[in-house]
Amino acid sequence: MRKSKNTDQATTAGQRGPAEHERRDQIIQSADEHFRIYGYRKTSVSDLGKAIGVSNAYIYRFFESKQAIGEAICAMTLGRIVDAIQQVSNDKTSATNRIRNLYKVIVEQGLNLFFNEKKLHDIAICAVEEGWSTVRDYKQAKLDVIHKIIADGRDMGEFERKTPIDEVCVAILETLQPFAHPILLQQNEPEILKIRAVAVSNLVLRSLAP
Amino acid sequence: MRKSKNTDQATTAGQRGPAEHERRDQIIQSADEHFRIYGYRKTSVSDLGKAIGVSNAYIYRFFESKQAIGEAICAMTLGRIVDAIQQVSNDKTSATNRIRNLYKVIVEQGLNLFFNEKKLHDIAICAVEEGWSTVRDYKQAKLDVIHKIIADGRDMGEFERKTPIDEVCVAILETLQPFAHPILLQQNEPEILKIRAVAVSNLVLRSLAP
Repeated sequence: MRKSKNTDQATTAGQRGPAEHERRDQIIQSADEHFRIYGYRKTSVSDLGKAIGVSNAYIYRFFESKQAIGEAICAMTLGRIVDAIQQVSNDKTSATNRIRNLYKVIVEQGLNLFFNEKKLHDIAICAVEEGWSTVRDYKQAKLDVIHKIIADGRDMGEFERKTPIDEVCVAILETLQPFAHPILLQQNEPEILKIRAVAVSNLVLRSLAP
Repeated sequence: MRKSKNTDQATTAGQRGPAEHERRDQIIQSADEHFRIYGYRKTSVSDLGKAIGVSNAYIYRFFESKQAIGEAICAMTLGRIVDAIQQVSNDKTSATNRIRNLYKVIVEQGLNLFFNEKKLHDIAICAVEEGWSTVRDYKQAKLDVIHKIIADGRDMGEFERKTPIDEVCVAILETLQPFAHPILLQQNEPEILKIRAVAVSNLVLRSLAP
């Protein structure tokens, strides 16, 4: 699979030592397993060290803290969502369809992540509550995707051009929140969320009419 | 001050004994003070009993649990927001202005509650996380306000009438979430939230154009 932009960025926050290193990959893999099984909060750096047979100090050569490992895993996970929505924005279909699909994919990917991989949900909530850089990167990636679709729709004459494009994009980003935010996703029934995502995408499309 | 609809509903969830009773008012007042100063989670029924000089058993004659007291306080607090948005919906101004004011008032009231009365924010998060009935009532009150404004706007020819009104109202309710949800309010700068609320209300108004 193509590495997502977010996956690449994962190699920056709180990480050190050689970027390409077998041990780094081992730590990431072990952390991914531990976080899925036991959850982020309940996993310690010692647990990871024991699992791959190295000392805590050795792990700290690659990651400055448990959070740095968490950010790497979180960036990989959110990177998969980013890949999916970037694919939507590049689809060879009308901008109108792409807006619809954006809401559809965001809610599906979120539900998949937060319901099927419940323990990874734990790390996403931590990321949001503690303001990890991965959350900012994810938000920016969503904004870039929205911007591309709106710009294409304006070029094709599908969408109005009077409103400043940045205002439109920021507003659309906000309307995605109920379907992208891990805490809000948790508080609603999946089927209800899907219906509401369609209602909101319809509202947004009416607002974009030329 | 006129009692809000939500304040009235507060006398139903988990409450018992005579509705009008000096002791009930004392318990509510003491709880309100304790929750503001120490927060909901850190206040026990014993703390309230000690403060007004009655036993826990006596308090349980009026409220079946600490949550029931919490729901009463939460309903009073959210009742103030409901009063404010109901006032917006009844204003003698265009439906367009009322939509703008709805977003403005929701974000202002939310910020006021969650920043100035930080400890009451604690109880709102509990209410959301544990799915208290007050949260459902608050959601319904917002939906009723939206419905009234949209129906008025359709009657006056300000808004389109093709889309089913229930779909429009549910979608607008979702777009209010980033400005009404206690956890989302906490995660953003107040000034940024206000600007985004304007951007979203503009998007919604474009979607309502006939």
